[in-house]
Amino acid sequence: VTCAAVVPAAGRGERLGTREAKALCLVGGVPLFVHALRSLGASGRLSAGMVVGPPQRCEAMAAAVRAARLDVGWDVVPGGATRQDSVGRGLRDLASDVDVVLVHDAARPFVPVEVVRRVVDAVGAGADAVVPVVPVADTVKQVDGAVVVATPDRSRLRQVQTPQGFRRSVLEAAYTAAAASGAPGQPASDDATLVERAGGQVVVVPGDPLAFKVTGPLDLVLAEALARQHG
Amino acid sequence: VTCAAVVPAAGRGERLGTREAKALCLVGGVPLFVHALRSLGASGRLSAGMVVGPPQRCEAMAAAVRAARLDVGWDVVPGGATRQDSVGRGLRDLASDVDVVLVHDAARPFVPVEVVRRVVDAVGAGADAVVPVVPVADTVKQVDGAVVVATPDRSRLRQVQTPQGFRRSVLEAAYTAAAASGAPGQPASDDATLVERAGGQVVVVPGDPLAFKVTGPLDLVLAEALARQHG
Repeated sequence: VTCAAVVPAAGRGERLGTREAKALCLVGGVPLFVHALRSLGASGRLSAGMVVGPPQRCEAMAAAVRAARLDVGWDVVPGGATRQDSVGRGLRDLASDVDVVLVHDAARPFVPVEVVRRVVDAVGAGADAVVPVVPVADTVKQVDGAVVVATPDRSRLRQVQTPQGFRRSVLEAAYTAAAASGAPGQPASDDATLVERAGGQVVVVPGDPLAFKVTGPLDLVLAEALARQHG
Repeated sequence: VTCAAVVPAAGRGERLGTREAKALCLVGGVPLFVHALRSLGASGRLSAGMVVGPPQRCEAMAAAVRAARLDVGWDVVPGGATRQDSVGRGLRDLASDVDVVLVHDAARPFVPVEVVRRVVDAVGAGADAVVPVVPVADTVKQVDGAVVVATPDRSRLRQVQTPQGFRRSVLEAAYTAAAASGAPGQPASDDATLVERAGGQVVVVPGDPLAFKVTGPLDLVLAEALARQHG
């Protein structure tokens, strides 16, 4: 297989409380998204990648990519208003020989190579769409306003991480279908959901706690502590 | 209201990979459960509390409580085989004038006082059962084996933390009903679920990321970093 990655990195990170784009927040002196690119590339499974950044920060991101001297060639392109727009933008420019696409959150800096490999290899073995998952740590409840209406059986729930892997044609078709439908209802919180809505099958492989997403200030404390530990 | 806390602390912490009981793991030089007791007591809402520990470690836990010189009086009693048994054991020995009960995981060391107060005050204002919640950070999927069968609308899901607060009579009735039913189906992963099963209403109040639960090694890295920051 020929595998490329799309890394949406245009998020503003409101929950982090920073003015800087989240992807450019420094962790151990290195921008968050550069950690993510390095972790993906270390898998040895990628031929190329697209980072989709905030339009006004693409220059800075391209400079950070050059400074990091990564093994994989990464292009930085300007993103859209939503995560879905940004991933769609990244898909548009992939080389024609790419047949497997990973989509990875820029805010998951430390995804282990084993997770990346499991995802790519499961697509290579024939799956249309693959997501890495971990058990749900806290009890999850469904609410209506301030009232609990259900407690779903936790043993059947999984927290979904990235990279999510797709046969390219499947992901492109899902994005085309989502655009055509005018995105009714809730926006999809991940890419696999678009494949599910298009009727495709999504399978799970084991993720890893280290593939956590930096969302709030506490995640940044953890990321800094890990960056210090691992040098 | 007269409010007491029950803190189940008999878990073995397999996911931490330690041999010691999880509650006795040191964070910043202090056992995990002592942080939890201190955080609860700092709310100023507690009259007393019961820690339910592993039978062979109750001596050590009582010594740690004495050494910490906490403002609230905490008894340490031996727990049962399951979390549910342990909470039931703690409930048995509460003073007769207690009318509000908090149940708090020993493995949530840094719950902010505001969260504790919100929970107690909501019960004081008339709620039967109250749980603190935060938004779900990752997409959650429902699986059947290795296949995704649904992606519940994330905007309706909440991650549940502790302390959970209850009118004492409501929690006791829920525990009695659970014991009588012989606990069919899935074991409840939190106490509010028992109230829901007994037909009671559970309401939510805002939790806080700092009320996270120490489950795996990464959580311990975060807890250590926070213990260093906050002295």
